Amino acid sequence: MSNNANITQVDKETNITIAGAGPVGALLAVVLGRRGYKVKLYESRPDSREHDVYQGKSINIALSDRGWLALESVGIADKIRETAIPMRKRVMHGVDGTLTEQVYGVKDQAIWSVSRSGINEQLLDLAEQESSVDLFFNKRLTHIDFVSGCASFSKGKHHIEVDADYVFGADGAYSKVRRLAQETSRFSYSQSYMPQCYIELTIPANENESGDARFKMEKEALHIWPRKDFMLIALPNPDGTFTCTLFLNYEGEVSFNTLKKRGSVTAFFNDYFSDAMTLLENPVDEFMAKTANPLFLVNVDPWVINQKVALIGDAAHAMVPFYGQGMNCGFEDCRELAELIDSHQHDWKKIFPAYQAQRKINADAITELAKRNFVEMSEHAGDKLFLLRKKIEAKFHQIHPELWVPLYSMVTFCPNLPYSQALKIGEHQQEIMNQIMQVPNIENCWQDDFIYQKLQQLVEFHFKDELTARGDK
Amino acid sequence: MSNNANITQVDKETNITIAGAGPVGALLAVVLGRRGYKVKLYESRPDSREHDVYQGKSINIALSDRGWLALESVGIADKIRETAIPMRKRVMHGVDGTLTEQVYGVKDQAIWSVSRSGINEQLLDLAEQESSVDLFFNKRLTHIDFVSGCASFSKGKHHIEVDADYVFGADGAYSKVRRLAQETSRFSYSQSYMPQCYIELTIPANENESGDARFKMEKEALHIWPRKDFMLIALPNPDGTFTCTLFLNYEGEVSFNTLKKRGSVTAFFNDYFSDAMTLLENPVDEFMAKTANPLFLVNVDPWVINQKVALIGDAAHAMVPFYGQGMNCGFEDCRELAELIDSHQHDWKKIFPAYQAQRKINADAITELAKRNFVEMSEHAGDKLFLLRKKIEAKFHQIHPELWVPLYSMVTFCPNLPYSQALKIGEHQQEIMNQIMQVPNIENCWQDDFIYQKLQQLVEFHFKDELTARGDK
Repeated sequence: MSNNANITQVDKETNITIAGAGPVGALLAVVLGRRGYKVKLYESRPDSREHDVYQGKSINIALSDRGWLALESVGIADKIRETAIPMRKRVMHGVDGTLTEQVYGVKDQAIWSVSRSGINEQLLDLAEQESSVDLFFNKRLTHIDFVSGCASFSKGKHHIEVDADYVFGADGAYSKVRRLAQETSRFSYSQSYMPQCYIELTIPANENESGDARFKMEKEALHIWPRKDFMLIALPNPDGTFTCTLFLNYEGEVSFNTLKKRGSVTAFFNDYFSDAMTLLENPVDEFMAKTANPLFLVNVDPWVINQKVALIGDAAHAMVPFYGQGMNCGFEDCRELAELIDSHQHDWKKIFPAYQAQRKINADAITELAKRNFVEMSEHAGDKLFLLRKKIEAKFHQIHPELWVPLYSMVTFCPNLPYSQALKIGEHQQEIMNQIMQVPNIENCWQDDFIYQKLQQLVEFHFKDELTARGDK
Repeated sequence: MSNNANITQVDKETNITIAGAGPVGALLAVVLGRRGYKVKLYESRPDSREHDVYQGKSINIALSDRGWLALESVGIADKIRETAIPMRKRVMHGVDGTLTEQVYGVKDQAIWSVSRSGINEQLLDLAEQESSVDLFFNKRLTHIDFVSGCASFSKGKHHIEVDADYVFGADGAYSKVRRLAQETSRFSYSQSYMPQCYIELTIPANENESGDARFKMEKEALHIWPRKDFMLIALPNPDGTFTCTLFLNYEGEVSFNTLKKRGSVTAFFNDYFSDAMTLLENPVDEFMAKTANPLFLVNVDPWVINQKVALIGDAAHAMVPFYGQGMNCGFEDCRELAELIDSHQHDWKKIFPAYQAQRKINADAITELAKRNFVEMSEHAGDKLFLLRKKIEAKFHQIHPELWVPLYSMVTFCPNLPYSQALKIGEHQQEIMNQIMQVPNIENCWQDDFIYQKLQQLVEFHFKDELTARGDK
């Protein structure tokens, strides 16, 4: 079943239990199954391929190059791309309805709107094709023996115990494996709530239309209504609808806590999102009917307990959605784990420490970047000087692509650059751009040659070690 | 029973459940009982006054002025002082056995070695004298309804449900209340393990001696063997013994993980603690028989859930023991809560938010200071330039007590200065002392007048706002 010549097979029977059959758990099952492991994949919910557990809601997420690279490594990227919609730019919607655009990358670079349930189901199908992978739904994890690797699952009053050599917790942001791991010794853990919560809203398709005419706004874009302390975003779906997410403070002056009455909610949408109001389907009813979902980050250490039980994906590093990297990072966990299995020849005494060392530092970096990005999306995206800064960066990137790749592009379009390095380089870049933005009259002279000469000098000074190292290669 | 004229009585029947009858839970029961609340105090362990749950181990802790102030507020300070031993200085034991001293404060200032179980039992006796306080032992908390305030406790197969208006979790570093609170919405939480673990060792008393001659080392001192990555400390007990604590890394070159064989443990003690080796009771046997205890910090937000359930003491802010402030901070929680109850006239809608706002910032500050202090105790305490720095600070404090109180003294001997302010002032002081220590030939000129003139100038510059504000009062 493999499309990768480097895949190695484990040479003795080794059982692995995976808790959680979301996108990351399913991909992990494929990766391990293809390497000869006997995998049992358990999920507490019903099989969404047989039961509509999503109640018709199409929740989409942004897939970018790190995710694609992982999907390519198991040969399913092309199939998923068939229903993915490229988003080539941000379209910012001002309070007065004016639109501003910002392309994400160069040429064909884009991030992709994909259906979370669709990608999950395609990966489950792929896992099921592996003879050594078995799937079990409606089984809720109740206990793990972190020494023996025995995991207990329940369905109603029935309990089963599952022995395994290794256990993976791929059970998401609210991971039960992680909660159980908190009882083990020396397990450092944090969960931090953001001030914002979110609800999902819908922009329906144009009726009686077909093709791209079904879309009420530009299709191949991520739409943002940046309003500083809150924002609305919209991602396109193949059926012509947009799934929108409203991010708003939990408490405070304008917040889910204060917006309780129909009149004030209507005024809120009319005041801040007047152009969206004409597109959204019953936003006021939806707002009043829905419970705001919290946003939180998780940090754990270690990721691997007793060389026996490991966390992966959101279970290890739940982050906020503001960089669109949550699932991409989880997929990257799987891809790099697969490479470690091959390079360490199935020696888990080496694989686990390398996995922890290699992945945690990068998950920490993207978690931090995602947290910072709320300000960029909600506040700066509507700010003229910020947009100018991005334009200068983009122009310099065009002139000297070897000297400057914008941070967003490093994270999104450079899947072989670790997140932690992107973060570090990005911080240097910010210092440099702070200096450039202080050039007098920058609004008018930003296209002049001397700006880019100065940028080049600053880069060569800031990054001299890196540039030397690159030259040495 | 009150010795405080400002105490106010609640005017309608109000029930409060306290989980945890350690020193903080017991003091809280006294504070609430005296204000007319119907208090039920539950403890999972047996009553140590009837059963020796400590198995003869005398664990002592350092009590300082914040703790005394809280104990005075309930009129029990004098009684506890009867068996407390003042520690007026640090005595540092070098690798070669040479001793260096550093006094903690001025005049009679001292920190006090007290028995943890002794102080706990005296507070339980005091709580029991309140007619509105009931104590229950051997009852393990199993569940809390965070909306109704109903708490469930079990003893073996027997379960009881206890209704209350309010619930306090005073159940320590491993708090069950806090663990249950993690399941409530928007509860931010972190537990961070330190690289060090600890075990307790004992220096026995001299046999056939009486009075102070029973002590094998200077009695009225806290003894430290600072060895950079690890350290041993010893606090005196009234029976002539010292309780020692060895802090050592969990893993790494010299660590609990690598010291597994008798030979290497013996060599470790001989190499690093040769003078203590002649005093300690079977340190090698003890080291090999004992399991290393972890050290961790806890940070939670909020401290109060649904205006119904609140955390207090270690349950809210477990910290590392390197500033000797853990119990002092918990006692201060109780004292300030009592003041808030009186000033807000039993209006818990005001008391709880004020308690959270006032205490969390200060607990965060002392948690941070305690973490930093490991380096001061284990590394700097043996460092000549560090000791010189402390001498200069002490001398300046003597000349200008109104301009400079060393950080340690602010934390330990200024119970009305919030921890958060001590931390902030301490950071300014560090910057100032960094400049002073750069004066050429400081080792020889440190007693000269110009040093203290320079210090005065720096203080007046750094603290000009604070000094002006102080002058305005």
